[in-house]
Amino acid sequence: MRLACVFSSAAKSQNPIKTLFRRHRSLAVSALPIMADSEESLRRALSEKQAAVDAQAEAVRALKARPASAPSEIDAAVEALKALKVEAAAAARRLQAAVSRNGDGSTAGSREAFRQAVVNTLERRLFYIPSFKIYRGVAGLYDYGPPGCAVKSNVLAFWRQHFVLEENMLEVDCPCVTPEIVLKASGHVDKFTDLMVKDEKTGTCYRADHLLKDYCKEKLEKDLTLSAEKAAELKHILAVLDDLSADEVGAKIKEYGIAAPDTKNPLSDPYPFNLMFQTSIGPSGLSPGYMRPETAQGIFVNFKDLYYYNGNKLPFAAAQIGQAFRNEISPRQGLLRVREFTLAEIEHFVDPEDKTHPKFVDVSNLEFLMFPRKEQMAGESAKPMILGEAISKGTVNNETLGYFIGRVYLFLACLGIDKDRLRFRQHLPNEMAHYAADCWDAEIECSYGWIECVGIADRSAYDLRAHSEKSGVALVAHEKFSESREVEKLVIVPSKKELGLAFKGNQKMVVEALEAMSEKEALKMRASLESKGEVDFHVCTLGKAVVITKNMVSISIEKKKEHQRVFTPSVIEPSFGIGRIIYCLFEHSFYTRLSKSEDEQLNVFRFPPLVAPIKCTVFPLIKTQKFDDVAKIIARSLTAAGISHIIDITGTSIGKRYARTDEIGVPFAITVDSTNSVTIRERDSKEQIRVSIDEVAKVVKEVTDGQSTWADIMWRYPAHAASLVDEE
Amino acid sequence: MRLACVFSSAAKSQNPIKTLFRRHRSLAVSALPIMADSEESLRRALSEKQAAVDAQAEAVRALKARPASAPSEIDAAVEALKALKVEAAAAARRLQAAVSRNGDGSTAGSREAFRQAVVNTLERRLFYIPSFKIYRGVAGLYDYGPPGCAVKSNVLAFWRQHFVLEENMLEVDCPCVTPEIVLKASGHVDKFTDLMVKDEKTGTCYRADHLLKDYCKEKLEKDLTLSAEKAAELKHILAVLDDLSADEVGAKIKEYGIAAPDTKNPLSDPYPFNLMFQTSIGPSGLSPGYMRPETAQGIFVNFKDLYYYNGNKLPFAAAQIGQAFRNEISPRQGLLRVREFTLAEIEHFVDPEDKTHPKFVDVSNLEFLMFPRKEQMAGESAKPMILGEAISKGTVNNETLGYFIGRVYLFLACLGIDKDRLRFRQHLPNEMAHYAADCWDAEIECSYGWIECVGIADRSAYDLRAHSEKSGVALVAHEKFSESREVEKLVIVPSKKELGLAFKGNQKMVVEALEAMSEKEALKMRASLESKGEVDFHVCTLGKAVVITKNMVSISIEKKKEHQRVFTPSVIEPSFGIGRIIYCLFEHSFYTRLSKSEDEQLNVFRFPPLVAPIKCTVFPLIKTQKFDDVAKIIARSLTAAGISHIIDITGTSIGKRYARTDEIGVPFAITVDSTNSVTIRERDSKEQIRVSIDEVAKVVKEVTDGQSTWADIMWRYPAHAASLVDEE
Repeated sequence: MRLACVFSSAAKSQNPIKTLFRRHRSLAVSALPIMADSEESLRRALSEKQAAVDAQAEAVRALKARPASAPSEIDAAVEALKALKVEAAAAARRLQAAVSRNGDGSTAGSREAFRQAVVNTLERRLFYIPSFKIYRGVAGLYDYGPPGCAVKSNVLAFWRQHFVLEENMLEVDCPCVTPEIVLKASGHVDKFTDLMVKDEKTGTCYRADHLLKDYCKEKLEKDLTLSAEKAAELKHILAVLDDLSADEVGAKIKEYGIAAPDTKNPLSDPYPFNLMFQTSIGPSGLSPGYMRPETAQGIFVNFKDLYYYNGNKLPFAAAQIGQAFRNEISPRQGLLRVREFTLAEIEHFVDPEDKTHPKFVDVSNLEFLMFPRKEQMAGESAKPMILGEAISKGTVNNETLGYFIGRVYLFLACLGIDKDRLRFRQHLPNEMAHYAADCWDAEIECSYGWIECVGIADRSAYDLRAHSEKSGVALVAHEKFSESREVEKLVIVPSKKELGLAFKGNQKMVVEALEAMSEKEALKMRASLESKGEVDFHVCTLGKAVVITKNMVSISIEKKKEHQRVFTPSVIEPSFGIGRIIYCLFEHSFYTRLSKSEDEQLNVFRFPPLVAPIKCTVFPLIKTQKFDDVAKIIARSLTAAGISHIIDITGTSIGKRYARTDEIGVPFAITVDSTNSVTIRERDSKEQIRVSIDEVAKVVKEVTDGQSTWADIMWRYPAHAASLVDEE
Repeated sequence: MRLACVFSSAAKSQNPIKTLFRRHRSLAVSALPIMADSEESLRRALSEKQAAVDAQAEAVRALKARPASAPSEIDAAVEALKALKVEAAAAARRLQAAVSRNGDGSTAGSREAFRQAVVNTLERRLFYIPSFKIYRGVAGLYDYGPPGCAVKSNVLAFWRQHFVLEENMLEVDCPCVTPEIVLKASGHVDKFTDLMVKDEKTGTCYRADHLLKDYCKEKLEKDLTLSAEKAAELKHILAVLDDLSADEVGAKIKEYGIAAPDTKNPLSDPYPFNLMFQTSIGPSGLSPGYMRPETAQGIFVNFKDLYYYNGNKLPFAAAQIGQAFRNEISPRQGLLRVREFTLAEIEHFVDPEDKTHPKFVDVSNLEFLMFPRKEQMAGESAKPMILGEAISKGTVNNETLGYFIGRVYLFLACLGIDKDRLRFRQHLPNEMAHYAADCWDAEIECSYGWIECVGIADRSAYDLRAHSEKSGVALVAHEKFSESREVEKLVIVPSKKELGLAFKGNQKMVVEALEAMSEKEALKMRASLESKGEVDFHVCTLGKAVVITKNMVSISIEKKKEHQRVFTPSVIEPSFGIGRIIYCLFEHSFYTRLSKSEDEQLNVFRFPPLVAPIKCTVFPLIKTQKFDDVAKIIARSLTAAGISHIIDITGTSIGKRYARTDEIGVPFAITVDSTNSVTIRERDSKEQIRVSIDEVAKVVKEVTDGQSTWADIMWRYPAHAASLVDEE
């Protein structure tokens, strides 16, 4: 899917372009339409137990009402009732546990507690700040504070290195302000919407699908008396939520009696709200514009110039990093669903007839979790696959798409994303736009569930065609033949006059449908027209079939000499939600450990040096001028080597200073405890080595640049326990 | 000045906050109110000659009309007239040359031709692309194409290295979408305006000051019959344009009969147009927002958290790189005045009582062109000054401001800005906001004149105070005293009851004015009240004086013990217009030279390796498999070393391939002409060295990273002319 859509939302309907913008189903709720066996049988068991309790209670009442009942008989029946109640309670507990447990056995509660610990640390250490906090903030807007900003710029620098430099991509930088016509062509003006409902009394706005989803989830988790049938119905709604029309969502909201969450007031019918921030370009008020919802369009409209820049050769890729905007109706899920975010997008243009990739061999042996369509439909889970096999078996549509899946995997793994909580999920047929050849999402599991962080889609020729049509500028590529070729060409000539007489106002739709026929369809029609004189023809834009007669269209095959092939390139689009990747990275990097005195839990981010906001700290062991001087000398050599660092000359205990920097993920700490050599301590292992002052910048550079590992360094500078710094 | 204002424009009036947003005077026109002597005397000379011509023509007519005139007398008079006409024409030519010549002797024409050559190359090689070109573009919006984007990201990376890393600044990253209250506090909602006029028939909008400026400039350049007095008047208008009110601009437009440039229709009166792109946050339509006009506000509103992050210590600096937006009325001057641009801003917070800087010594010996207020007022030009002397003489207000001036100078010089066309211009008193302590602009001369590219302002406590007041959150710093101090404190207690009786609705203004008195004013008032019982008191918010009597206010000095000092920090703000710096850099780097065959002018950008979009190219000398293989091996080693490069395996002549890459400023070209060693050619000197294949990446890295110069490399790998590649 497109990343645009990662941040997107429920746009409904059968209109194919809308499917561009919906994909968010895997956010926080598993979209699988299948109810797990165990849950269903637990629900049935509970309702049987409950029925048995009810029957026994009735029997007890009847016994008591009958004057002839022996007390012993009554006592036995009451005992049996008690036993049945105990069994029913146990069944209820088992069901409760099943519905609130996630796939990995963690409960929603434990996930939330973990998230709270991470987010508290992130906010306290200023990785993030709610924007405009002193003015009580704005929902869905966050600042990156100093360490967050450093992580972000490290991630972007690595993205440039890993994708743009490695593949010689053409990077561009286009404005955020975009005139309406561009987003009209792309479909955003008409279709980039979410369904909204309003509190009928206060006017507060809500996302209709969110309210319906919340209702279903809460019922499923909290109402243990729910019948298995009702539970299946609610699960089905969760699975197809993105496909429901405004009317269907509205009907369900009415049926379930869903009210405004804050006031319990009745809600309006759902209606679409466009998610783009609108503005006006220039002073006249006559040029509507929008803040771009994705960066991709800036590349598409430049295709012609970029193709020329690349020497009129395919394939090539263009890339862009920049801000994108979505005016969310009511942002939730903290840092994952925001109103402004950084996207990094690649548009790799390729000949649709040749989607091989010369460097695929470099990634074909990679093995990682993949979640193809088939496994999803069968209710199975993601499984490790070798990328080369996924291509050769046809699971992934083509080599170029597969190459980017492999490169994205390497990118995320290098950043420090846990490979066991990273999977590539293929889009189900109903998730994919009609024109797309194949789409895979890199999903990362965090406390919110599996989050779509990168979309990798083969979008065929859709975008270039849309802009060609709207602008009248042909966005096409040429392949010159070394010698001219004789080709057979299908020529379809609808008779506008006859069609006009027959179909009046619908003439245009019929003409377009005739012209759009494939060679096979056209030849079949010709045969039918010749044998029968007329044929039924389905016109999808009319939603019905019409009768075509022989005089309405001429279909022939002509031979022509051609010197070149002119075609619209396909585009393969890996699209990265940088903020989401970073948030997941924070969760995957976070852990706690006991302090040495065992009286405190300390927070640590295990960032690899590549992404660590600061590469090392410099601590004079005790507050003395000579150690301060050494610290300053070291700091200068680190600056000269381009290594970001901080000096902490507060007199605090060395253990506290380590803890303070572990908590922002600084991988190395240099402690100045003599005037000719110092110790370097690694964050996670807490191992230390001793290095002379003039070598220290070189050593830190080696290990932060990735030329050496800490293990290499340990081998070269063995630790001498006696000469090291005590953590406390 | 603030960079916000670099991109700003004529906001008029006496209201002090407006001065925040005007400064753009030096764009394209020298703002000096003094008319150059030579020009004035030339105008006078021309008008004297013209008067002499007219008088002589009259004399000839009179002679001819008199029947008694001798033919010889008439001939002589005609000859004299001819001679006078020749002299007048010569005087006109001298004046024309003077008014169309710039300070450096270049003419407006030659500057424009140079600009056209640069811009043609930039657009043809895709440094820039007019945004949304296939849809006929949008004025004031440009894309950076691949080489432009690479230059921009190099400039930003160096900015981070030179400022953020070197000074341990706290970098943040805030959203562009900003709620109204923030920009209300900063003054932008009310004051960030330009004066606009509309074509009364078509509704087309123009900037009022631009029309007036164009009229004056054109008159001055083209109308040689202009009297010296009239010329002085027009020059005066150009000088004070930014200070004119809407009424004054409107009156001048009427007086001069200025009409709409496109239609010659009459124009409306000027009225202010707010330059921010407005939008709406969330679906309710009740939360107005704007796209930020500068990045600084995001830092100010976070002051409290950043101060805490810095251990509650001053000084510290925060920094931000990001997009900013200005909805220009009618953007002109191509790449210099755009509607969306990248700013890099630093807010250095400092104790107002101590603006020394510990690292000032590192820059105090720098010498560069400075243009202090005094020299500007005297009509002199910028002159070289040593920064340390500018501080010790008080020309620059304080060390911290001076330190940043020095650092900005080094930054621009490293990028490749020509030092002779870079000056630091101090703001004139009327340019500076009332609260500002001192402001200097780094101005770079290009074909448009002297362009403000960096503003370095000591803005005192203005911004933090504005947000403290609006938000109710105290944005202050604390200095704890080692022991408590006894201080005398002025206590002013207005009697609201008495003042209310006396001034009714004006009571609030009088109370505020009394409370705002300085110690000196208050003590003087107390003395007057004691001696005379009443005193005249000017209330500026009322615009008049009122009589204050003894019972209306109590003024006393009290002694208090204080444990700490609480104060609002001053902020020193260097603010960089990245797009403008890059554009000037393009002009300063561009030159042309003859091709070897001397039949063609070739374009070259002499970018230093630091900013060059691509560091080197790899060319197989001739098209053969073995050279292609070597080229690929070298390319891989360059990628591994992180050096951006391109391979050109087209069969084109080596000279053409050099020219192609010289034109995008690639500093080094590797030509593969054997399988064990290659040549490296430097772009500007065209010198070549021969290096073995396994060393080539290392050598290129050394010289592009700045560890070695080309001269060092030349010394180590002497050129052997015989073994090198011929350019042709």
